[in-house]
Amino acid sequence: MPIRVTVWSENYHERHQPEIAAVYPDGIHGAIAAGLADDGRFEVRTRTQDQPDQGLGDDVLDETDVLIWWGHARQGEVDDRWATAVRARVIDGMGLIALHSSLNSKPFRAVIGSSCRSAGFRHGDSELVWTAAADHPITAGVPSPIVMADSEMYCEPFDIAQIDEVVFISSFGGGEVFRSGVTFRRGRGRVFYFGPGHEEYPIYHDPIVRRVIGNAVAWTAPAARPSHPRIGPERRDKPLDWFRPA
Amino acid sequence: MPIRVTVWSENYHERHQPEIAAVYPDGIHGAIAAGLADDGRFEVRTRTQDQPDQGLGDDVLDETDVLIWWGHARQGEVDDRWATAVRARVIDGMGLIALHSSLNSKPFRAVIGSSCRSAGFRHGDSELVWTAAADHPITAGVPSPIVMADSEMYCEPFDIAQIDEVVFISSFGGGEVFRSGVTFRRGRGRVFYFGPGHEEYPIYHDPIVRRVIGNAVAWTAPAARPSHPRIGPERRDKPLDWFRPA
Amino acid sequence: MPIRVTVWSENYHERHQPEIAAVYPDGIHGAIAAGLADDGRFEVRTRTQDQPDQGLGDDVLDETDVLIWWGHARQGEVDDRWATAVRARVIDGMGLIALHSSLNSKPFRAVIGSSCRSAGFRHGDSELVWTAAADHPITAGVPSPIVMADSEMYCEPFDIAQIDEVVFISSFGGGEVFRSGVTFRRGRGRVFYFGPGHEEYPIYHDPIVRRVIGNAVAWTAPAARPSHPRIGPERRDKPLDWFRPA
Amino acid sequence: MPIRVTVWSENYHERHQPEIAAVYPDGIHGAIAAGLADDGRFEVRTRTQDQPDQGLGDDVLDETDVLIWWGHARQGEVDDRWATAVRARVIDGMGLIALHSSLNSKPFRAVIGSSCRSAGFRHGDSELVWTAAADHPITAGVPSPIVMADSEMYCEPFDIAQIDEVVFISSFGGGEVFRSGVTFRRGRGRVFYFGPGHEEYPIYHDPIVRRVIGNAVAWTAPAARPSHPRIGPERRDKPLDWFRPA
Repeated sequence: MPIRVTVWSENYHERHQPEIAAVYPDGIHGAIAAGLADDGRFEVRTRTQDQPDQGLGDDVLDETDVLIWWGHARQGEVDDRWATAVRARVIDGMGLIALHSSLNSKPFRAVIGSSCRSAGFRHGDSELVWTAAADHPITAGVPSPIVMADSEMYCEPFDIAQIDEVVFISSFGGGEVFRSGVTFRRGRGRVFYFGPGHEEYPIYHDPIVRRVIGNAVAWTAPAARPSHPRIGPERRDKPLDWFRPA
Repeated sequence: MPIRVTVWSENYHERHQPEIAAVYPDGIHGAIAAGLADDGRFEVRTRTQDQPDQGLGDDVLDETDVLIWWGHARQGEVDDRWATAVRARVIDGMGLIALHSSLNSKPFRAVIGSSCRSAGFRHGDSELVWTAAADHPITAGVPSPIVMADSEMYCEPFDIAQIDEVVFISSFGGGEVFRSGVTFRRGRGRVFYFGPGHEEYPIYHDPIVRRVIGNAVAWTAPAARPSHPRIGPERRDKPLDWFRPA
Repeated sequence: MPIRVTVWSENYHERHQPEIAAVYPDGIHGAIAAGLADDGRFEVRTRTQDQPDQGLGDDVLDETDVLIWWGHARQGEVDDRWATAVRARVIDGMGLIALHSSLNSKPFRAVIGSSCRSAGFRHGDSELVWTAAADHPITAGVPSPIVMADSEMYCEPFDIAQIDEVVFISSFGGGEVFRSGVTFRRGRGRVFYFGPGHEEYPIYHDPIVRRVIGNAVAWTAPAARPSHPRIGPERRDKPLDWFRPA
Repeated sequence: MPIRVTVWSENYHERHQPEIAAVYPDGIHGAIAAGLADDGRFEVRTRTQDQPDQGLGDDVLDETDVLIWWGHARQGEVDDRWATAVRARVIDGMGLIALHSSLNSKPFRAVIGSSCRSAGFRHGDSELVWTAAADHPITAGVPSPIVMADSEMYCEPFDIAQIDEVVFISSFGGGEVFRSGVTFRRGRGRVFYFGPGHEEYPIYHDPIVRRVIGNAVAWTAPAARPSHPRIGPERRDKPLDWFRPA
């Protein structure tokens, strides 16, 4: 049973800036999806913010095991209801992978509960992505460091809540550091944030980055497809009488 | 400099059900505030859902170091913007104490990021609240167990995200268990959830419960009053050149 | 490739107290091993404290993927070197399952780093073991609560360090509570503590308890057999020159 | 009531290598103690491995609220009993600050429970120490980054168990990264590891490093002096009968 992956991105830079379109002719979502296409475990589709209902809806989410999210310039325009819907799905078991500037996205912030702000940024820097959790499945087959000649610097303090595991830590040409791969648990769902991926650089064409994302899809996927029962707490009218000694 | 506490409650049961009004003639918020009044460290006011703007607003939150929240029957009617506002304040350092049925409140869920559902409930049960974190400041002067002849049972699994510390665990007459005192960190803010407090029982008149809440106010209060700067990430145009050896 | 399980116990009560021998004629280790025998994933052997070298040695540990430990009356006599050896193996990936009174064992305390003391105990009580982590693999197929008519009470505060996940919480006939199923991460290794298992009661004959232990073996087993390389930190004589822009 | 600090170091390099003696004429312990001397909150003494009983003993530990540990070349010769004793004291509330190469010390490893190995090292590199936990008391008055022209590189993966908070993350001239300030909780005790401090460089003379260490002493100090009761679990012969409804 394949893992059903929905790759969502805002699809704005690619359509409005020729130099970005040159890097991602099929969109950032297209490049990410292409990177997952060869992995027999995944069934992949893309959705974008410029589609009706911003590409989302119950029908889409009902058939999504893992949602990959890339947003940047138009994150403020994402409807609040999608943040709420994504959070509800994660709680019921859907995996969520937030990429790069999506640390500021409404769905990611709704799931994490803190500002998720990076303390700073700078375009046009080199990045080294070091493995910090040596045996984490997301690091399988990934060299340490991953070397990126061109990337965007994000830096500490990274205002994230209590994390589960630090999987990657990056340093940049300017010396800054950033926890660039971190995991979280929310309800039944697993969440992974991965730092690299500025739109100006062909990062999602990099086979190593594609391996990280593929590993993360497999790791965040729920063990069983969620049945999405909308159950509330159960009323228990009687105590467990047998528990009390006679 | 006193800690400025705002006690917020929905003030519904007390006004519509005579038997609840008999237990809390000054409202649940009034009883909680009265319990904090004798502690010289606190400057306390109350606000309720039936006030204009549901008792909230920037002016209120600007002058709140710790927000205590009690909601139940009308939590669905709380405006989403208050969940967003409370979350933003917590991230900037405001303490948040969510009581009893407020595990289902919009602000608490927004801060935590999971469903926060208890698996079940039952009115009219006895509760024992055991200290699990022996030296936590919230437990200072608190006996273990706290004995409650009449309480409402909540039970595991309690769907909360990764917690910081388990401070209290309760058992009930029916044998169920519940992590009834848990802490979280979000941004600069500290968060505490405390289980006991069903409206039918005079739990907030109990001096031991008042001590727990007072301890929790002192513990969640920010070290310094937040200045609420709405800063985004800083653009760093230059790398730290001095970092590179000549 | 089967998971190689070594079930270690002190084998003292069974040999010196007829009433315990009646409950565990093949020893506590024998009952635990029998409970794992039908699971085709495991290759099981037993070792006991009254054997040469207290049943341990590099040859045993070299062929152990998961070590189950049960100690009680003679834990003070376990050689310190076994605590050190078990800790080193866990760091390299061996799974460790500590049962019941083994919270006070030298190997478990060496791995955890705190006193691991329960605040109290009482023989001859009923126990309810409630699932707290609803989707944890260790809870698969396990009812909540597990009902034990006869068990030994342990209670909070349970002095364990920061835990990874609370999987089970027990309540007892006397109303006490105890985090009776908790996980930890140490180096490459996974660790699980499970509370039930006093020697006077036939707890390890219970098919549900056997399921918990089987699930825990599968969950703590390393993804790959550790190669046990005794590597120290690597000397890196040169910085990554290519990292520096020209 | 001042915080009683014991600064322990092995005092080996300083006595055997003239070039190290030139950097630390009063020993590494002497420089660290001098850095704490001006803070009116502390009562400081030094102890070294070349003293009788390796500078330790119940009399020393009985009067220590916070123990600072620096070891390197002779860590293998530290008696195992001191690792056990330090761990027992931390569990009872003593603060522990492990510096630099003391990640490999017996007491630190006994408290943490994992190998605590850095993946690599290199002398003679520059280091930037970035604040990752913006409001942690240990970072008060500390610039981000702390700039060290000469330091020793340690790098990820850093094999530490689940940590409490990441306070500092360093990058090095070669691009490597390291979680250089991390906290842990064990029993009643607080533990802090701080990375910088290679013996060849005058790091402990740096006023900013001294501020970090002073902050860490204040933060790890127990709220009340431990009474060191050697209590075991309490036998509770009777259940809480009043808990059961009539």
